[in-house]
Amino acid sequence: MSTEGPPGVHPAWLPSRATQPLGSRRTLVHGTGTLVDTVRREVAAAGAPETGEPALVLTLTSEDAAASWHVGEVGALGDEGYAIGRRDGVTVVLADRPAGLLYGFFHVVRRGEAAFTGEWPLARHVPAMPRRMLDHWDNVDTHPVTGQVERGYSGGSIFWRDGALRDLDRVRAYARLLAATGVNAIAVNNVNVHATEARLLTDRLGEVAAIAEAVRPYGIRVHLSVSFAAPVTLGGLPTADPLDEGVRAWWARTSQRVYEAIPDFGGYVVKADSEGQPGPFGYGRSHADGANALADALAPFGGVVHWRAFVYDHRQDWRDRSTDRARAAYDHFAPLDGQFRDNAILQVKHGPMDFQTREPVSPVVAAMPRTKVAVELQVTQEYTGQQRHAVYLGPMWSEILRFPLAEGADVAALARELVAVSSVGDDPFWTGHPLAQANLYAFGRLAWDPALDPLSILDEWIDLTLGPEVDRAALHAMLDESWRTYESYTAPLGVGFMVRPGHHYGPDVDGYEYTAWGTYHFADRDGVGVDRTRATGTGFTGQYPAPWSEVYESVERCPDELLLFFHHVPYGHVLHSGSTVIQHIYDTHFAGAERAVETRRLWERLDGQVAPDLFARVRERLDEQVRSAAEWRDQINTYFFRKSGVPDAKGRPIH
Amino acid sequence: MSTEGPPGVHPAWLPSRATQPLGSRRTLVHGTGTLVDTVRREVAAAGAPETGEPALVLTLTSEDAAASWHVGEVGALGDEGYAIGRRDGVTVVLADRPAGLLYGFFHVVRRGEAAFTGEWPLARHVPAMPRRMLDHWDNVDTHPVTGQVERGYSGGSIFWRDGALRDLDRVRAYARLLAATGVNAIAVNNVNVHATEARLLTDRLGEVAAIAEAVRPYGIRVHLSVSFAAPVTLGGLPTADPLDEGVRAWWARTSQRVYEAIPDFGGYVVKADSEGQPGPFGYGRSHADGANALADALAPFGGVVHWRAFVYDHRQDWRDRSTDRARAAYDHFAPLDGQFRDNAILQVKHGPMDFQTREPVSPVVAAMPRTKVAVELQVTQEYTGQQRHAVYLGPMWSEILRFPLAEGADVAALARELVAVSSVGDDPFWTGHPLAQANLYAFGRLAWDPALDPLSILDEWIDLTLGPEVDRAALHAMLDESWRTYESYTAPLGVGFMVRPGHHYGPDVDGYEYTAWGTYHFADRDGVGVDRTRATGTGFTGQYPAPWSEVYESVERCPDELLLFFHHVPYGHVLHSGSTVIQHIYDTHFAGAERAVETRRLWERLDGQVAPDLFARVRERLDEQVRSAAEWRDQINTYFFRKSGVPDAKGRPIH
Repeated sequence: MSTEGPPGVHPAWLPSRATQPLGSRRTLVHGTGTLVDTVRREVAAAGAPETGEPALVLTLTSEDAAASWHVGEVGALGDEGYAIGRRDGVTVVLADRPAGLLYGFFHVVRRGEAAFTGEWPLARHVPAMPRRMLDHWDNVDTHPVTGQVERGYSGGSIFWRDGALRDLDRVRAYARLLAATGVNAIAVNNVNVHATEARLLTDRLGEVAAIAEAVRPYGIRVHLSVSFAAPVTLGGLPTADPLDEGVRAWWARTSQRVYEAIPDFGGYVVKADSEGQPGPFGYGRSHADGANALADALAPFGGVVHWRAFVYDHRQDWRDRSTDRARAAYDHFAPLDGQFRDNAILQVKHGPMDFQTREPVSPVVAAMPRTKVAVELQVTQEYTGQQRHAVYLGPMWSEILRFPLAEGADVAALARELVAVSSVGDDPFWTGHPLAQANLYAFGRLAWDPALDPLSILDEWIDLTLGPEVDRAALHAMLDESWRTYESYTAPLGVGFMVRPGHHYGPDVDGYEYTAWGTYHFADRDGVGVDRTRATGTGFTGQYPAPWSEVYESVERCPDELLLFFHHVPYGHVLHSGSTVIQHIYDTHFAGAERAVETRRLWERLDGQVAPDLFARVRERLDEQVRSAAEWRDQINTYFFRKSGVPDAKGRPIH
Repeated sequence: MSTEGPPGVHPAWLPSRATQPLGSRRTLVHGTGTLVDTVRREVAAAGAPETGEPALVLTLTSEDAAASWHVGEVGALGDEGYAIGRRDGVTVVLADRPAGLLYGFFHVVRRGEAAFTGEWPLARHVPAMPRRMLDHWDNVDTHPVTGQVERGYSGGSIFWRDGALRDLDRVRAYARLLAATGVNAIAVNNVNVHATEARLLTDRLGEVAAIAEAVRPYGIRVHLSVSFAAPVTLGGLPTADPLDEGVRAWWARTSQRVYEAIPDFGGYVVKADSEGQPGPFGYGRSHADGANALADALAPFGGVVHWRAFVYDHRQDWRDRSTDRARAAYDHFAPLDGQFRDNAILQVKHGPMDFQTREPVSPVVAAMPRTKVAVELQVTQEYTGQQRHAVYLGPMWSEILRFPLAEGADVAALARELVAVSSVGDDPFWTGHPLAQANLYAFGRLAWDPALDPLSILDEWIDLTLGPEVDRAALHAMLDESWRTYESYTAPLGVGFMVRPGHHYGPDVDGYEYTAWGTYHFADRDGVGVDRTRATGTGFTGQYPAPWSEVYESVERCPDELLLFFHHVPYGHVLHSGSTVIQHIYDTHFAGAERAVETRRLWERLDGQVAPDLFARVRERLDEQVRSAAEWRDQINTYFFRKSGVPDAKGRPIH
């Protein structure tokens, strides 16, 4: 095992430097099991000496070596938890199960030299979410328009190339990186399951098994996106009706064969009745019927089905102002609460629309107390700059996870799992934009502990990846507010979209305004925004529990940043900030584009502090960000000036 | 030779019925030469008896048989002209050269039974343009986004499939159809010359020779689109500088080899310094230098170069209102008048922009009296409904050709050639929409005689293609005004574009408004249109000769249909029609979409009168036209209502 990973590939947050503090100290590892062996190999690869006084002990609580560490004080650590403390010059990691030992090991790596200084009592670390999962939207084949990785901005798939499985060295390195963040599950293929990829469930199952074998040593289980129509398209049955006995038997047989090949297989991911994918509606069945059919097939083997709630009418008539895509997931799924099997997990996008830069939290998350809900984030920056803009999403996700959606419960407490769309491809830097690695890192860390400060997570990533000596202040100045900066120069006040149709990069204010996709801003010469109130609009506000149902309903109480998501207001409407809507648009767009320039300037301070290829790649992306931000600024400002006729109060150039 | 053409392919305007009047009459053909032999084969294929009194005589004027027909009366007929008359129960076609005999033969076919009734004196028919040419934008390979035929709406290429030359039976049938309209030249490949297609000039020349052989019996010469960079990309030279001796020698050698393979090769078509194609600007040379280099290489063999004037900045800054794409061709080329070789033909799009439904005539056509100018039309309906809308373009082209651009000279008189982008693919109906065949037919007929009435040409096409018994009134009601109908529900008053970027189908009012393509409408809350006046705008009006320079300059005198092409006016501006601009937009869009419905209704009258597959295909296209026209209506009306705030005076629904 090389600690640097495959040649030509950036080591991300696990360069050999990161394990150097281990290299000069003797470490003892006590326990048995695959993941304990992984820890042993990690220790050996770090170059730890095999003699001398031990400075670090990693032990299962069942081992004799654990006896002296007051294990009882920390309580049960579960499948993945660990405790870590330091006494008498020895750092100890305790875990009930091997996975905990692995996560504890990476905790030590994250702490660096600090893991070996001072004395501190045992502290308990258990993950907030039992499953922390990344969904890859990878295809085996390359699509002529969308490429190989749908919404991928980091090159091709790390799993497949030229229609065949790749050498998996890189996948092993990927698994190691993920384990260091706490991720424990991946779905390997696109939720839009095309013909070739459908066969991963059957005659190409060996490829999935090979990936599972590659990632297993890092505690990661493999899931597979499947087509709801598979009984027809693969099984040759006349129907995929989830209540049909033949269909159920087909799923049972098929799943049994999957588990024969992959005993720790995670389960299925399904996008059904969504954007053209087949689903239970085609057979007059409910989505609970659909999900349960697959859940029943997986249950004997401990598998789960992730059933996406992203169901809406993508052939909407833009003339029809009463239909509201934001309502769709709640309208479809809330009535089904209590009908899903225990191993059926409803996977809900964090907002009611589609991974926009700013959305309210989806009301579905609070609406289904008897259903296991996974909240889905998007690490790949489809709508947040496509890894050409430096946008650190930790603060956004933190805000979502901490949002007090229900009485006494924030999103992190309501969600049973956290899932995200991966941003990884075969790009040398993994994520296209090297700084976008921080998002992948932060996702895993927040999924483990949603209470973490996203800026501290960013610090961790900087320390591990770029080293403690780089100009940390410059990086914080670039990234801490970068999500809000991106928001400031793109679609204003929560209204969303305004992107070029299809590829979703760059501005096109009316790009989706007259389409079937349900994503409108309704700007006219008098005002802008979507009236989603109960009083006069689509009634979407009524899907929220109190107080949000009232806060969002009220144009006075609605937070500025979501105003146009919930209300259609005149350009002269005065925000809580004291600015009018139109002047806010101008001000934020001028300021945001200016901050992009400042961000580029700050990066120059890192010249010579980071590897030249990384420096150059970031510089190239920042040039594009500056160009693109100016384009956003000018298109949005000009669009609204032409519509409103209101000049900028500060007399800046609007074309 | 089957008169019906290849199996499974619609015979278009040459079904066996069209030659039936010849089948019952003895015909004599006098003369020698390839094209005379073609006429003989046509006569035989029609089933004409070989005995009895001759009813038709086709003879070269040099033959003894011509002596009794007062040849002297009709004067010289040239390479392609013919005279036709009828006396004493015999119809005669006279021609000086074999090609004339072939065109005279098809004249007889067009006349049908009427060619054999009554008596009429010899009338002379010579083409107005010596070259009547169709440009195919076909690729050998299939492009992942644009397909095989760029801007093609009729399936794949008739020349190539799967990267190789096809069986050429269909190409032979195509040549016959073209000859019947008067077309005498085709360019076989896309003006955007990709890597594979570039090699048609060199190691794949045999494919061009095979096509030339297939079309030669119908008097059609083959031209080839070439890349200006060919000396570098194919010849391995360090430069393509047109003044470089090595480059000139390369073109000379290459052209000589072409003529060795294809003695009647027509010449080259070049799109240079245009939308990313290489050109002389890259070497600091003028377009005359570029064109002349190729012309010199072709001159020894009688070939010509068609040099496209479609040169403009496709990376324009939309913020910059002073740059005007409409000016570009004139600004680039007018100063070069007199510098082009005799065998260099400047190929100018009919309007200053890009084949829009309504544009003024390009001022370049009148600006270069010492240059041979070819006017380029677009038979493929890129911007006129993409063969999903029934749009008969004959009236548009006729209006262009008859437009009195210069003192005492209309466009037909100023142009030395007529060229058009072909609409033909391997679709069974040739043109996707069966009624779009009429455009292909009309192009050839107007290129031969621009004075022809386009509605009479439509009659010819109906007679030949659908037979004299179909409901001609219904077809005329569908097609006579169809171009103006299409105009009425799309971009208003000459402003152009407003199409979806990329594929150019369907409405997107702002689709190109903030792009680099130079195609803007500048609509704001007060008004719309492009100020191209000398007084306050881009000065484009100054490129026109009197009186147009004054007519277009004046907002009062400018024709309504071009108002927004030349002027930015308030929505309340009153047109010559008495309507305001905004009410005109509403009225024409409601009426246009209604006419689309009426067009569909009219087609039902043809049920049972035409072949079922043709009937069904047209019906399917009309359904789409109705849907699309309603979409155009609603998007345009809503867009302008939201911007202007002016309600429809008639209270119709605007969303």
